[in-house]
Amino acid sequence: MKIAVVQMHVGEDKLKNIAHAKSFIERAAAKAVDLVVLPEMFCCPYETKNFPIYAERDGGESFTQLASIAKEYAIYLVAGSMPEKDDEENVYNTSYVFNRHGENIAKHRKMHLFDIDVDGGQTFKESETLTPGNNVTVFNTEFGKIGLCICYDLRFPELARLMVDEGAEIIVVPAAFNMTTGPAHWEILFRNRALDNQVFMIGAAPARDKQASYISYGHSLVVSPWGDIVEKLDEKENLLIANLDRSLVKKVRKELPLLAHRRNDIYTISKQ
Amino acid sequence: MKIAVVQMHVGEDKLKNIAHAKSFIERAAAKAVDLVVLPEMFCCPYETKNFPIYAERDGGESFTQLASIAKEYAIYLVAGSMPEKDDEENVYNTSYVFNRHGENIAKHRKMHLFDIDVDGGQTFKESETLTPGNNVTVFNTEFGKIGLCICYDLRFPELARLMVDEGAEIIVVPAAFNMTTGPAHWEILFRNRALDNQVFMIGAAPARDKQASYISYGHSLVVSPWGDIVEKLDEKENLLIANLDRSLVKKVRKELPLLAHRRNDIYTISKQ
Repeated sequence: MKIAVVQMHVGEDKLKNIAHAKSFIERAAAKAVDLVVLPEMFCCPYETKNFPIYAERDGGESFTQLASIAKEYAIYLVAGSMPEKDDEENVYNTSYVFNRHGENIAKHRKMHLFDIDVDGGQTFKESETLTPGNNVTVFNTEFGKIGLCICYDLRFPELARLMVDEGAEIIVVPAAFNMTTGPAHWEILFRNRALDNQVFMIGAAPARDKQASYISYGHSLVVSPWGDIVEKLDEKENLLIANLDRSLVKKVRKELPLLAHRRNDIYTISKQ
Repeated sequence: MKIAVVQMHVGEDKLKNIAHAKSFIERAAAKAVDLVVLPEMFCCPYETKNFPIYAERDGGESFTQLASIAKEYAIYLVAGSMPEKDDEENVYNTSYVFNRHGENIAKHRKMHLFDIDVDGGQTFKESETLTPGNNVTVFNTEFGKIGLCICYDLRFPELARLMVDEGAEIIVVPAAFNMTTGPAHWEILFRNRALDNQVFMIGAAPARDKQASYISYGHSLVVSPWGDIVEKLDEKENLLIANLDRSLVKKVRKELPLLAHRRNDIYTISKQ
């Protein structure tokens, strides 16, 4: 299985952002990639005030364009995330997944909102304009099951476990860590979720833009089920391409049977 | 709060090992340390065949000597781990904790047994001779609550969460990773458990002995609630001393409120 991550700059013009993403997807498709991942809020600058302004309903213009792109290049497209609004005008940070026919096969609404206030570091409060989602998201492909969560969701080991319990062997995370949490936590979190759960982890970040009000750390990456970094980028705009040797999931789970060794007679993680 | 980790060599003579540990504890006490941690199986070479041979009942000779040492130096002593047998001749990998008066205030029996078989790497099967424990262990001190688990227990994020839910702000882990899992996973696991749970993590390993049948990775360390390494050793025999600024736990939990942001309306970890 061959995947690509689009580490792109995000500007103010929504449709230009989608066209920009498309140019990367075209390059990826030319290399026979099966699945392409875009970053969190790839078509809307990451500021709380923008989310309600850029939000669209299911099936809106951005959704439709992304579905067509997936179909045109016959790829799976994890369309990063974008602001979605429902009929009650609630706004979500939502990731849509389209299959090779352009059909929407999954949708994850960010479940943990990013409210942070680090002394001398990053401050942000998604809950000012966003509503959290309530569902664990795993979708099916010819390469097996793939879990999906968004950025801050990655911080919660319970969610990764629930995706793995639903069969995920790969977890995809459109994300945008910042210059406080990125250097401190980005790589450790991806590597640890990978090795705890013996899955491939894919992190897709926007390229760093020092003029932005929220500065992305970048460093999109792919980690193996053993916790090794398969590929990673620096902070600049770029296309990451990686081959996932899916047999590694079985191999690692056999050699070091962490999932089987859980003491489910003592503790369990359950969905309410 | 000032703590010490004894990264010591382990030989075949049980009482010599305890005397060796005591010489380190004396050095630590001279530096006004509050708590000393010994490594996993610090008085019994780490081989499955040894565990039943070295095993003692609660209150046995090793237990008694360690209690006296804690009292003599008026320190908290997390006495690494040693093989313990019960009245049915079951053998456990057990960590005893003694307070400044030499009273045994906690006891953790390793809950996850280390059975691993990595192609071209480490093979080991604790379950050949050991029985697993069934309890989450947190003990109280004048510095707040401290969680305790042993080596492979660290691999299971559920257990760290349960200790934190019982109030742990520090988690102590006597451990002995090897030359396969140590370089690959040791530091990431400690750093990630620390930052997920916003606790101090203390890892105590035996010094590396290339002649041993099981070769310890060493690298005892202390990690802050932000995931930074406070102190770490290399592979050689040495005494680690670290100051824990416990106000960091509150600070990090306020600035990045991960524990409060858990979606307990969606998922919970519960004890059976």
